[in-house]
Amino acid sequence: MKRYLLAPGPTNVSSEVLLAMAQPILHHRSPEFSKLLERVKNDLKWLFQTENDVFILASTGTGGMEGAVSNFLSPGDKALVVNGGKFGERWLKICSGYGVKTEEIKVEWGYAVKPEQIREALQRDPSIKGVFTQGSETSTGVAHPIKEIAAVVREFDDCLMVVDAVSAMGVFDIQTDAWGLDVVVTGSQKALALPPGLAFVSVSEKGWRQAEKCTNAKFYFNFKKERESIVKNTTAFTAPVSLIVGLERSLQMFKEEGLENVFARHQLLARATGEAMKGIGMSLFPKESPSTAVTAIVAPEGYDGQQIYKDLRVKYGITAAGGQDQLKGKVFRIANIGYLDTFDAIMAVAAVEMVLKGMGHPLKLGTGVGIAQEILLKK
Amino acid sequence: MKRYLLAPGPTNVSSEVLLAMAQPILHHRSPEFSKLLERVKNDLKWLFQTENDVFILASTGTGGMEGAVSNFLSPGDKALVVNGGKFGERWLKICSGYGVKTEEIKVEWGYAVKPEQIREALQRDPSIKGVFTQGSETSTGVAHPIKEIAAVVREFDDCLMVVDAVSAMGVFDIQTDAWGLDVVVTGSQKALALPPGLAFVSVSEKGWRQAEKCTNAKFYFNFKKERESIVKNTTAFTAPVSLIVGLERSLQMFKEEGLENVFARHQLLARATGEAMKGIGMSLFPKESPSTAVTAIVAPEGYDGQQIYKDLRVKYGITAAGGQDQLKGKVFRIANIGYLDTFDAIMAVAAVEMVLKGMGHPLKLGTGVGIAQEILLKK
Repeated sequence: MKRYLLAPGPTNVSSEVLLAMAQPILHHRSPEFSKLLERVKNDLKWLFQTENDVFILASTGTGGMEGAVSNFLSPGDKALVVNGGKFGERWLKICSGYGVKTEEIKVEWGYAVKPEQIREALQRDPSIKGVFTQGSETSTGVAHPIKEIAAVVREFDDCLMVVDAVSAMGVFDIQTDAWGLDVVVTGSQKALALPPGLAFVSVSEKGWRQAEKCTNAKFYFNFKKERESIVKNTTAFTAPVSLIVGLERSLQMFKEEGLENVFARHQLLARATGEAMKGIGMSLFPKESPSTAVTAIVAPEGYDGQQIYKDLRVKYGITAAGGQDQLKGKVFRIANIGYLDTFDAIMAVAAVEMVLKGMGHPLKLGTGVGIAQEILLKK
Repeated sequence: MKRYLLAPGPTNVSSEVLLAMAQPILHHRSPEFSKLLERVKNDLKWLFQTENDVFILASTGTGGMEGAVSNFLSPGDKALVVNGGKFGERWLKICSGYGVKTEEIKVEWGYAVKPEQIREALQRDPSIKGVFTQGSETSTGVAHPIKEIAAVVREFDDCLMVVDAVSAMGVFDIQTDAWGLDVVVTGSQKALALPPGLAFVSVSEKGWRQAEKCTNAKFYFNFKKERESIVKNTTAFTAPVSLIVGLERSLQMFKEEGLENVFARHQLLARATGEAMKGIGMSLFPKESPSTAVTAIVAPEGYDGQQIYKDLRVKYGITAAGGQDQLKGKVFRIANIGYLDTFDAIMAVAAVEMVLKGMGHPLKLGTGVGIAQEILLKK
């Protein structure tokens, strides 16, 4: 049985990237690698829409998130955390691990935070040093309004806007500089369609100023050290060279496609999958502001979402995602990011139909596929 | 745009095989390679269902076909050629090039030869030294009745049964020994899902006896020399080592799946594609005995088959096949062989629907896909 990866991370990797990574190992202190890093650094600035250097960590996105706390907030400092799912919770856990006090905005799963909630919280407690949020909350399939939140945060001089953009950067528009995002973190295994193992971070001047005052302990995720290194086209520690070779290829493909077209592709696949699912009587989990990164689908009444996820994998070789925590059994999720195109969306819809049919669902096979085809049709 | 290969040759190659072939080059006279060749030789005997050694040529199937003429028939000898398509014609051309006289059974494209036609021809001219036919005629999508033809040929002591099984071996049941097939030729780029570049040949004892009497000139495709080599687990000339490394991996995958299951897979995909196409108002080109290797579909009245083939490629990144010669514009063809599974058939059907819709066809999208899904459903 052929196997397919339709999970929202790690995502499907192209042969182009896999082959690039299969090349002989470069030494991380060689001039060749330094030149490669310079090219990649510039491409990452393009991707992040920033003039600040974007540096690379040998970690997954969570390492970048940890550093986004430990490099900017000191023990006893206060953070405002938007918690609308699994990854919102992660901000809370990291802050707690570093002795950072948190003010939590608990957002019901399936909803997005309101910028007004941020303003109220910051007005209530002007000592808050940073707002921590997700660009896209993968567990619920919801996108938070980053641009609008950032506009609010900019009203407060001593507060940073920190974005976990792991499932957002390269998925939809995230304008780091124009929107005034102070710390932005993403990872390799999402829209960039690389294997897991790299995190990318950009920090604004406001962010660096606050970092100067930070007393928290950190060694591996020392952003200042990474900044000093990337300026010289090197890395603080051993660089994951093969992944970075793959990264160059991936960014090249992004540039060839064009950022707008990349965003449009994710949107098109999300629309095709989403409308098809609705067309066979299911609903999407997000009550508002759905993220184009992943389509979170509510299993039909009487059907186990976890079983749908399992049947996709076991019967049809498709690894999508189930629901997490409170959503386990209720939803299943299909990625629109990674090296995917028209027929991956059609496959996803066809396979979900076949799984449901196999479970005794009365749907007419091909109904959802027809809807997806209509949306994906090339004139 | 992602690209997909759904042509009846070269066919889609798995990552497993591609990675195996990416290994460092073995020397063709090394003990490692000799051991590999021994293993592969035994697996090929399993595939061919024969006790005779199967030898490997560094050529495509056509090289094997040439040798199947030049090693057994001498100038002035007579061959009976079944000509029901492009590849039947090829036998005629090869024979003519070697001064072999031919008696042609012209079979209307879309039909299979009748064993009785073979008997009549052989009875009419007992000097005929060999019957040359296709197992599967890729240009028309028709399978000739090899078992029944061979039974007829066995009635004639001095006549060989020569089968171009390029698109048949590993596709459906071909019992080399049990059916008494004297010379069987296949290639790497069809069911075995390898890149083009290898031909495989088995020869019966009856075949070798006739080869002794053959006076035709040959050097590269010298089967006797290949036979002497393969017995010693070597090749007459430089072996295409990487392809043979890939061959071992491919045969391993075939053995894991099991020959019966491999045949059933081709049949299932052929049925899904075929029934779906009929379900959206098209017909299949074969009037009888369709081959499961390739589904040849008649373009709807008023639609250009060549344009369907082109739109599949240009708009949707799918390389299938158009029609050849007299069928150009009338049919298009979709492979069921190669590294393909459930969702490749669904993709093919979905894409054909979308291409037709794009051309203004009134079909309801998803109709054919629904039919394919029903057939491919895993309970």
